[in-house]
Parts: sequence; structure tokens; C-alpha cells
Amino acid sequence: MAWQQIAAEKKAHQLDSVPKEWLTSDLPSEETLNVINFPQESNVLSALDREITESSVASLLANLASSKWSSVQVTTSFYKRAIVAQQLTNCLTEIFVDRALARAKELDEHLEKTGTVVGALHGLPISLKDQVGIKQIESTIGYVSWVGKFAEKNSVLIDILESLGAVPFVKTNVPQTLMWGETFNHIFGRTTNPYNRSLTSGGSSGGEGALIALKGSPLGVGTDIGGSIRIPAGFCGVYGFRPSYNRIPYAGCVNTLDGVDSILSVLGPLCNTLDGTKTFFKAVLSKEPWLKDPLVVCKRWSEEEYNLIDHGNGGKLCFAIMWDNGIVAPHPPVRRGLELTKAALLAAGHRVIDWTPYKQAEITKNIYDIIAAAAAEDFKTAVAPTGEPIITSMALIQQDPEPPLFSPPEGGIPAFELWQLHKKKRDLRQEHLNHWEETVSQTGTGRPVDAIISPMAPTPASPHGLGGIPQYTLPLNLLDYPAMIIPVSNVDPELDVKEPREAFYTAEDRENYEQYDPATYENAPIAIQVMGRTGEEEATIAMSEIIDQALRAAKPKL
Amino acid sequence: MAWQQIAAEKKAHQLDSVPKEWLTSDLPSEETLNVINFPQESNVLSALDREITESSVASLLANLASSKWSSVQVTTSFYKRAIVAQQLTNCLTEIFVDRALARAKELDEHLEKTGTVVGALHGLPISLKDQVGIKQIESTIGYVSWVGKFAEKNSVLIDILESLGAVPFVKTNVPQTLMWGETFNHIFGRTTNPYNRSLTSGGSSGGEGALIALKGSPLGVGTDIGGSIRIPAGFCGVYGFRPSYNRIPYAGCVNTLDGVDSILSVLGPLCNTLDGTKTFFKAVLSKEPWLKDPLVVCKRWSEEEYNLIDHGNGGKLCFAIMWDNGIVAPHPPVRRGLELTKAALLAAGHRVIDWTPYKQAEITKNIYDIIAAAAAEDFKTAVAPTGEPIITSMALIQQDPEPPLFSPPEGGIPAFELWQLHKKKRDLRQEHLNHWEETVSQTGTGRPVDAIISPMAPTPASPHGLGGIPQYTLPLNLLDYPAMIIPVSNVDPELDVKEPREAFYTAEDRENYEQYDPATYENAPIAIQVMGRTGEEEATIAMSEIIDQALRAAKPKL
Repeated sequence: MAWQQIAAEKKAHQLDSVPKEWLTSDLPSEETLNVINFPQESNVLSALDREITESSVASLLANLASSKWSSVQVTTSFYKRAIVAQQLTNCLTEIFVDRALARAKELDEHLEKTGTVVGALHGLPISLKDQVGIKQIESTIGYVSWVGKFAEKNSVLIDILESLGAVPFVKTNVPQTLMWGETFNHIFGRTTNPYNRSLTSGGSSGGEGALIALKGSPLGVGTDIGGSIRIPAGFCGVYGFRPSYNRIPYAGCVNTLDGVDSILSVLGPLCNTLDGTKTFFKAVLSKEPWLKDPLVVCKRWSEEEYNLIDHGNGGKLCFAIMWDNGIVAPHPPVRRGLELTKAALLAAGHRVIDWTPYKQAEITKNIYDIIAAAAAEDFKTAVAPTGEPIITSMALIQQDPEPPLFSPPEGGIPAFELWQLHKKKRDLRQEHLNHWEETVSQTGTGRPVDAIISPMAPTPASPHGLGGIPQYTLPLNLLDYPAMIIPVSNVDPELDVKEPREAFYTAEDRENYEQYDPATYENAPIAIQVMGRTGEEEATIAMSEIIDQALRAAKPKL
Repeated sequence: MAWQQIAAEKKAHQLDSVPKEWLTSDLPSEETLNVINFPQESNVLSALDREITESSVASLLANLASSKWSSVQVTTSFYKRAIVAQQLTNCLTEIFVDRALARAKELDEHLEKTGTVVGALHGLPISLKDQVGIKQIESTIGYVSWVGKFAEKNSVLIDILESLGAVPFVKTNVPQTLMWGETFNHIFGRTTNPYNRSLTSGGSSGGEGALIALKGSPLGVGTDIGGSIRIPAGFCGVYGFRPSYNRIPYAGCVNTLDGVDSILSVLGPLCNTLDGTKTFFKAVLSKEPWLKDPLVVCKRWSEEEYNLIDHGNGGKLCFAIMWDNGIVAPHPPVRRGLELTKAALLAAGHRVIDWTPYKQAEITKNIYDIIAAAAAEDFKTAVAPTGEPIITSMALIQQDPEPPLFSPPEGGIPAFELWQLHKKKRDLRQEHLNHWEETVSQTGTGRPVDAIISPMAPTPASPHGLGGIPQYTLPLNLLDYPAMIIPVSNVDPELDVKEPREAFYTAEDRENYEQYDPATYENAPIAIQVMGRTGEEEATIAMSEIIDQALRAAKPKL
């Protein structure tokens, strides 16, 4: 069977799996770019559906535990909204309503019978990037060649989430190969940005970004090897957390670049509240994932570290802002996001200094070279069974595409060359750590900088085909710093005017500058990235909460 | 200059660095094989030197802290004994008496002036495998081509040890390339086993093994990527601890196979008491090494885990003994070591079951293939500057050598092939963890097996050229289980008779069987290996203490 036909049948099967009564007839026209409020304002959802889907994770869990809302009710409400989100932005891959509702029913019965919740996530529906293995469900990750590969068992994460009482209910869209900051593949097509559908939702966890932003899921799980949690979170205006390597179990998830081993993709949460990311992280660790996935670090959630024992117990902190990486300058709204953050932190009594970027270009090149080492062969092997083409552009109309952002060398490199790259990587990590330690002389706290704040990308969500430049996210996947994405505001053409600029760091910088036009990016979310030190997930979450609270407190005045 | 001349000059320089008054004139003849008691029985050391060098780490630290003994005194006593050990077994590389004594003097003055110790290891001399970087000292690791490369700064471990008050005082011998279970190179020559000099001291931390056994150092640091701490510890009858990846900082140490990245060499202690290994590990972690070496896991010493919170708080434990890996059966004395251990544990009230080996051959092949991926090129690059030959046999007389244990493919393999090996590695780790978890049905404790006990090697210390078969150590470097070596007894020809055997697992098994002859191995130490789970260093130390105490308690009766 031709790959086109396999893809078409799979897509048709996806449509069949949606209950017809959940399909919306009053969809906005294709010309309507901003659809973020559609689910809440239209009458496709009942009042209760709307109340539930607008609730925070904390309040959902409380109302589920008290039986105010059943899991069947909560799952149904989110499922209905997810289907609306799907019609608006094409964010879903696998849809399995009956199975999710059966699971929700079991949980409701358990609670009714025993009076106790199954676990910390009792009854909560959770969406999952397509990579996450769920028994008897496909993980095609956009490869037509992978259609029909049903998982023989759950991934470790799904086992853990289920033991916590969660309800996996949808899987979400990704770009073919996963190596894009946008989301498009030959099976499920393109995911768009709900704030402005002429823009990308980011990638590779782009389905999650759009779905969570539209409140079609209270909590989602993405993966990140170069920014794939952070770019969609930032582009779609939601929180997203990239933990360090091997704290959340990856076993049983499918992947591209499988075997790269020295730069690791990680799993992490996306959510409309920061608190939800903490709830997810803490709950997963409570199940001792190191006893189930041999790669997971044997380290419990540390309340001590969350209470900032290594950061003066959270009193006066010193943050450093990296305004610009010296390679591609951020667009005006991105800069405004950092300025708002600085003002909010100063108002909250913290110190803010400037961060001097350190070898960002070298770090980017090194990680790129490592993950590219055998990527061409990896992609070729993946598409070989059906002969589907490898996608080379994310543009709407694919004519004379430029080389893709990620174009690994044909044939790869020898292992010895890879070893040399690893030595370079280790040196860069050491130097960057030393660079951070040396800030102790500038902070006034007696400690080095507590956390670094930077753009998440040099642009807000970009037009399709131009987006997802990973210069501000990719270096962290080498440095292995945990990073939280915090939404700050949205592009406002009146505030975010284009300023004249004559000197440029690089050709890429000039190109990026020229792309900016306030009208094009209207409404696109603005986000910041907060980075802690390797393994400091607890402290990074706690400091992100401090920053987030400062931003929320400052908002009325901004 | 020819490599032979460079090596000869370096060796002559080493001899020059020994104070002449410390050289012993009454050395035993070369025919005297067992020299383990020579330092204590001859009069090359004063009574005080002997008292000091026979003391445990705990009592040394107590007497140093109370100023009963000065650090200058303690360092001098150990230095003198180390020089005796050097004359007996050729275990040292770098000797820097003045520098160590100057450091000891500083510490003494600090204590005298302030009344407080500098840190948890105040005044304690520590020996270091040649790889460990010390400012202005060479780390040739037996490569003639590396003579003259003086370290520009301390390794992170040395900085930490010095901040704890330790006194680095000698470096110790290794085999060229480090990929041998014996110790011989073109610069420093061969290290022999102090219990029987016709046998190897093991490798690659073979200098440490011989030095610690002769009590020429109270505490030593080795490295392990395939057994290099455990083999010399076991062959020389001392304790040796291989922690999981990245708990002890490696930054600033030199290495072979540099850049291998997916199988990591680790640093760990060798000592005459088990308590010394704990002291070392806990002290290093107390200095938050993750703030100095970016690869170190951000995890404090856990007293909770040391108190066996995950193992029923240390009440009744269930150990599993792997008597035999199904590839190479252990020699009779090795088996006797396990039997003694089983009896001691049963007498102490614990349960002991049999461990079923899981894919040991596949695991061994996978790790071998990964570390061999670019090793030939790595070795070639290292020896290129002087043209010294790569050593292909550890035999005394190198005629028609068999291929060395480790003979990586010329030219290496492509990165894509390496990625496939990494996938296999991950699967093997997952399967082995599942295999361990499944023992829950056999233990009677409600938990899976608490720790696995196995041979350290299929033989006691072997004759030169036959030793260091890593089948019982290498798999752990892939599985990343922490492992403690505990000395149990010594080969006794009356007890350890050769039994007839007709069926063999493999050609290697037959060869190993045929090599055994009680007289050849007389006096060689017998050791066991105790394995915990990845990242469970604290619990592995605690369970090793339980086993060690059981063995000591049983000894009078055995």
C-alpha cells in the first residue's frame, strides 16, 4: 500500500474515533486567526464542562477527591474540549474515548467503595505526547511507516501515572523526526497556534502546546532534547518544565535518534498553572521510578531543596538575565517579557543582574554535531518501510525549501569522532559551571546567581515554516540545566514596535530581525525561560514560583 | 629521543625522588613470594611507624584530630612504608615527599593555631591512582608519550580532598591503556601481588591494591570501568568500592577511552577497613561535588538510605548468591569464599537464596563492544608521539602472545552502529532490573532481593599474564550497580583442592579450570563482591557492613 493511502486511512480512523456528538458545527472560519477563547465563549460545552475545564489542577484534584466531580465527568468535559481544540488546531493523534472513560469509571467506583483516592492524581485526565507508550495504542510519531505498531505494554510513566490515579485520555501531535520547532507530519498534518493560527504552535511537543493552551487537557506530558517542551509551551503561552536527564522515567516511550545516549531527551509536564508542573513532578517521584526504569536517578523529591536550602532559604535571591545570546537578538516583545520580569523581581525585593553569555555558539554546535552523528541513518531507517519522504520544510507551501534546521550528515561520523565531541561537551559543561560559580562576586548574596532568566526563543511563535529556532533552548540540553517556561504576556503591536537596527551578529540574526513585524505576530504569547543547575529540579520549581508570583503581583500595574 | 630512553629517564627520576634513608637494605630475596608481613616484621620502620601504619582510618583520624599524632608524623610513617611497598611490589608512580610533608605541616600548624581540624579527613595521607590530576604532577598512566605533561591544576577530587584536610602523598601504578586486569607498562614496569609475587596484583588500579595491602597507605583512590577497583582490591585482599556513575567527581583526571560517555569509568576508594570506604564516600559528598563537576549527581549523602529505609530498616535481609555466571566457573577457593559468606549470613539470621544469572554473556559482549567502538584509534593516538608499542600481553616472557583480552577493532565502528549498541544496552539494563524485581516472590521479606553476592573474579589473583578476567566485574559497569569487594580468606591448598570436572560452559571455562592448581595460588586472597542497585551507594555500604560483620563474627568458628 502506498504511504499516502496508509496515512489517509489512519487519519480517517482518527476521525472515526471521535464521538460525532462532540463535533462542533459552529467552528470559526479559517480566516479567524485567534481562537483561544472559542471553547469558552461558544456553546459547544455545557456550563459545567466550562467550569471544569477552566479549573486549575489543584482545584480539579480537590473536587475529584471530595467527589464533587466524578472522574467520568471531568474526563468527559476535557475530552469534549480536546475535540474542540482538535477541530481548531489539529493537535491530537490518538483518541480513545471509551477506554479513558472506562478507566475513569473504575476510579470513581474505587473512591465510592473505599472512600480513598487511588493516588495523588486521582481521576485527573492527562494528555501525552505521541511518543509515550500506552498498551495497545500506536505511537507513530508521525512516521507513516510506524502505523500499526501497537505498544505491547505501557511505558513506565503510564504505569506510574495510572498507579497515581491519572486517566491517560489523548495523545498529541509532533513533527516527523521530532527534530523541528514546529509540528507537521504526513499522517496527522499540521498543528496551529490557537492565539494566531497563521503561526506555529511550536514543536516537537506542539500538539501539547495547542491543546493545553485551549484547556483541552489539564496536564500534558512532552519531551525535550532541544527545546521540544519549552518551545511549544512558550509559543502557546503555557507553563512547561524540562527536568534534568533521567528524573522522569522514559522507558517504554518511542523516540527518534534512539541510542544517542550522551544527549538525552527528557520527559516533562506542560500545564496552565505552574503548580500543576510541580504536582506532576513530585507525584511521579513519589513512586520511586528508579525501581522501574534503570536510568532514573535514585533521588526522592527533596522538600529541603524545594525550600531553597541551597539558596538562602528563598529570602533575597539574585537572578541573572541573559538578554541576548550574542547570536540571534530577540524580537522586541521577547525583550519586553524580560523587562517585565526584571521590574517584577525588583519590586518583589530580589536582585537582578545581567548574565554574560558563555560560548553559546560553541555549545550549540557541539550538541548539534552529537545528535546529528547518526541521525541521517536513523531517519532513513524509520521511513524505509513505506518510502514516505523525509520532510524538509515546515512551510505551508513547500517550494524551493531552504535546508532544514536540522540536516545531519549523510552516512554519519565514526565513533572516534563522536568520542572527541563528547570530550568537547564535557569541557563546555565544566567551563559553563565555572562561569556560573564565578558570579559569586557580583550577586551580593554570598552565593553565585541563583537562577538564570533568558528568552525561550528569539521570537514569539513564528509563521509556519519560519519557527522554532532553538538557539535559546538547545544549549540547555547539553548543559543539562532544568528549565521552566513561564508565560508573561502577548504581542501587542502598539507596545512591540520594530526598532531600526543596522549591525547584526550573524546572517541568521539579520534574517530573524527582518522577519519581525508586529502585525504578523499579533497576540502571540511571550514567555521567559528560568534555568537552574543540573539536578536542581526542586529549587528550579520553587524559584519559578517566586518569579511567577512576582509577575502576577506586578501585572495590574504593568 | 627514543621512547626507551624517555621511559628510563622517568624511572630514574622516580628513584631519585625517594629519600635514600628510606630505602631498605634487608629486602627479601626475589624468590620470597609472600612479602605481606615484611614491613611489619622487619626493622625498616620504627615502632611508632608500625603502630601508625597498622591503624584503621577511624583511629588515625581520631589521633590526628586529638593531636596525639601530627600529620607530618603520620604522613612520614606511611610514606616510609609506601617506599618499602614500592621496593617489594613496584606499586608507585609519582613520589613527592617534600610537597606532601609541607602540606602535612600546614595542617598541623592550622590545628595547633585554631584548635580545629580543616575537615573530615584532617591530616590523613591518601594515595591516588596515576590518573588523578594533581597540580604540577604528571599523570602518565604508563604512556611514555605522556611523560612531561604536568597537570595545570588539581582535579576536582584533589581540591575536595584537600579541603577536607587530606594529604595526597603518592600516585600508583597502572597498566598501559588501563584495559587490563593486571598492572604493567613501559615506564614503571610491573606491580606484583604482596601475598605471592608470582601473581598479579590485578588492575588497572593494581598499584593501589598492592600498596594498600602492604599498609603503605591508609586510603587509596582507584577507578573502575570494567573491574579496575574491584579486581586489585579482591586480588590483594582489601576492601574496594565501585560507586554508581557520577557520584564521585572525575573532572580533571586523565583517562583512556576518553569520550566513551555511555559507559563511565568511576572513582572509588580502596582501604583495609570497610569503614574507610564509607568515610571517604561520605566526606567527598559533604563537599557538594555537583557544584564543581557538572557530571556529578546532585544528591547528598542520605543517612536515611544508609539506615536501609528501602530494606526493612536493616532487620532481616535477603541476599542472593550468584555462585557461578554460567560462562566461567569459579575456582574452588572462590567458591569457598561464597560458602563462608552464606554460612555467616545464615548464622546472623539473614536469608540467603540463589541468584539466577541473567544474560551475563550478552551484557559482557555489549559493554565490550561499546567501549571498543573507538578504542583502537584512542590507543594509537596516545602512543603516536613516541612510537612506543602498544602492549599485547601481560606475561613475564612475551612470546607468541595470545590476542589480549581487550582487542578493539581497527578503525572502530560508525556512530549509527554505536547507537544500536546503546539501545541494546538500555534494554539489557531494563531486563536485568525486571529480573531483580521479580525476586520479590522468593525472598520472604516482601521485597526483592536486597543485595546480590557474587565472585569478584573466577580466580584468585592469577600468575602474571593469566589474570584479570573481568567476567564477574564487567557486567556491573553496564548495569551500573554499586559494588563492594570484601576480603574473606586466603587460598589454602589443603582446603582448596582441585576437583575433577568434565563438562565446561566454554573454551574459556575449560582454560580457566585447567589453570587452577592450589600450589600456584597459595596465599592469594579470596574476596566476594556485594552489589546493590544503581544509585544505592549508601545502602550498599550499609549492607556490606552487615555482611562484613557477619563474616568477622563467624571467623573464629570457621
